[in-house]
Amino acid sequence: MTRFALTLEFDGGPFMGLQRQDHGPSIQAEVERAVREVTGETVTMHSAGRTDSGVHALGMVSHVDIEKDIAPFRLMEALNARLRPQPIAVLACEPKAGDWHARFSCLGRSYLYRIRNRRAPLTLDRGRAWHVTRPLDAEAMHRAAQVLVGRHDFTTFRSVHCQANDPVKTLDRLDVRREGDLISIEAEARSFLHHQVRSMVGTLGLVGLGQWSVEQVADALAARDRAALGLNAPAQGLYFVAAKYPDI
Amino acid sequence: MTRFALTLEFDGGPFMGLQRQDHGPSIQAEVERAVREVTGETVTMHSAGRTDSGVHALGMVSHVDIEKDIAPFRLMEALNARLRPQPIAVLACEPKAGDWHARFSCLGRSYLYRIRNRRAPLTLDRGRAWHVTRPLDAEAMHRAAQVLVGRHDFTTFRSVHCQANDPVKTLDRLDVRREGDLISIEAEARSFLHHQVRSMVGTLGLVGLGQWSVEQVADALAARDRAALGLNAPAQGLYFVAAKYPDI
Repeated sequence: MTRFALTLEFDGGPFMGLQRQDHGPSIQAEVERAVREVTGETVTMHSAGRTDSGVHALGMVSHVDIEKDIAPFRLMEALNARLRPQPIAVLACEPKAGDWHARFSCLGRSYLYRIRNRRAPLTLDRGRAWHVTRPLDAEAMHRAAQVLVGRHDFTTFRSVHCQANDPVKTLDRLDVRREGDLISIEAEARSFLHHQVRSMVGTLGLVGLGQWSVEQVADALAARDRAALGLNAPAQGLYFVAAKYPDI
Repeated sequence: MTRFALTLEFDGGPFMGLQRQDHGPSIQAEVERAVREVTGETVTMHSAGRTDSGVHALGMVSHVDIEKDIAPFRLMEALNARLRPQPIAVLACEPKAGDWHARFSCLGRSYLYRIRNRRAPLTLDRGRAWHVTRPLDAEAMHRAAQVLVGRHDFTTFRSVHCQANDPVKTLDRLDVRREGDLISIEAEARSFLHHQVRSMVGTLGLVGLGQWSVEQVADALAARDRAALGLNAPAQGLYFVAAKYPDI
C-alpha cells in the first residue's frame, strides 16, 4: 500500500463542492472514480481543505491509498486521462509515508479571493470573480483586514454548519491590493473555519463601499455572533491556493 | 450624429471572430444588434483589430456612429444590458470627433499570448491558453524573438488570406517570460499582418522545444515565404490587449 499525495487544480463551477455529495457531482467523487478505473481499487480521498460549490483550487492537496504497484508519474498521467473532460487536473503526485495525512499533517492553508470592481459585466472572469459594480476603496479594506489578523474567536465569520470544535483560529495574513479593476485578497492561516474567508471578504466589501467603518469590523469580531456578520461573499471568487506541510 | 469609441472585452471562444460572418456568431454582429435595440439604428462597427475565432480581447477599441442623442455612460450601460448573456462587455464609451477612426487613427496595437507549459491538462485556463506539454525554454524563445523585432518583410509570418498591401511591418516589442508554468509573450507594433502573432509564437515554440535554432528563425524570416513557417500557434492563447491613439 502506498499513500500518494495529489496536488489538484480545478474549476469549481460544475461541482457541488470538493467533498462527495449524494445530490450532485464533486471533485472527490471524480478523483475516486478515476482511481478505481486505473487501479480497480475503491479508495477514499482526504484533502487539506473542503471547498464549497463554485470554489476553485490552484493547488489543493489530497491523498489516496493504493495497493497496486504503480509509479507516481504513471498514476498522475493515468488519473489525468480518466479525469478528462472534467475540469480537474492532477498537477503533482508524490508517494508519502503512511502516517502523512493531507488534512491532519497540513501546517498552513492559503486562499486567494478575486473581486472585479467595475460597472461592465464580466466576460473572461465570469464565474471566476465576485463582480462588484460600485467603487471599492481597497486601501480601507486592507486597513480593516488588519483588525482580523491574529488569534481570535472567529464565531462571527463562521458558517452555522461549521463542524470545527474550536472557533479560535490564528489568521496569519489578510492582504488586500488593487491592480486596475481587480482586487485580490490573500489569506493565510494554519486552518480556517467553514466560510471564514468568504465571510471576512464580504465584511471587507462593506468597508470598501463605505458602509462599515474599521471599528464596526472590530465590533463584529468581538461580538462572536454570526448575526453580527456583514455579508458572505459569493463562492466563485474564492481559490484554494496551497497547503503547507513539514519538510521531512 | 456622434461617433462613439467603445472599449470591448470579450471571450472569443463562442464566436467565429470579431468581424461579422455569414456562417456564425461574431462580436461585431452582437454589438450592432445591441446598438439597434438601444437606438433603433442600423450601424456598422469598425475596430482596431480583426481577431479570429477563439481569440480574446481585454481592450479592443471599436467605433459606431449614432444619430440618437444619448449620453456615453447611458449608451454603455444600455449596450451591456443588451449584450448579456454574451461574454462581451463594453468597458468604456467615449464620444470622438467625426474624423477619428478606430482602425485608421490607431497608432499601435498590443497583444498577449499565453502558453501553459505542463503535463497536466488545463482546467481554469481551458480555451484561454495554448497547452504545451513538453518543456519549453522561455529564455531561448526570448532570444529568438529579438530576431523578429524591427522593420522586416513578415511574409513568412502572414496568413495566405492576409489582405494587407504591404508585408513590411515594424515590430516594436516581442518579449517572452516565464512565471511558473505560464509563459507570456507580449507583442507591440503599429499594426500586424493577419496571423502574424500566432505565426511568430508558433515558431518561437519550436525554438523553446529545441527543434529550431535562433538562426533558423532568422532564415525563415529572410525567406519571405509562408512555406518556411514553423508552426501557427492556436487561437485560444491570443488576447488583443490595447490600441493606442493620438492624445488629442
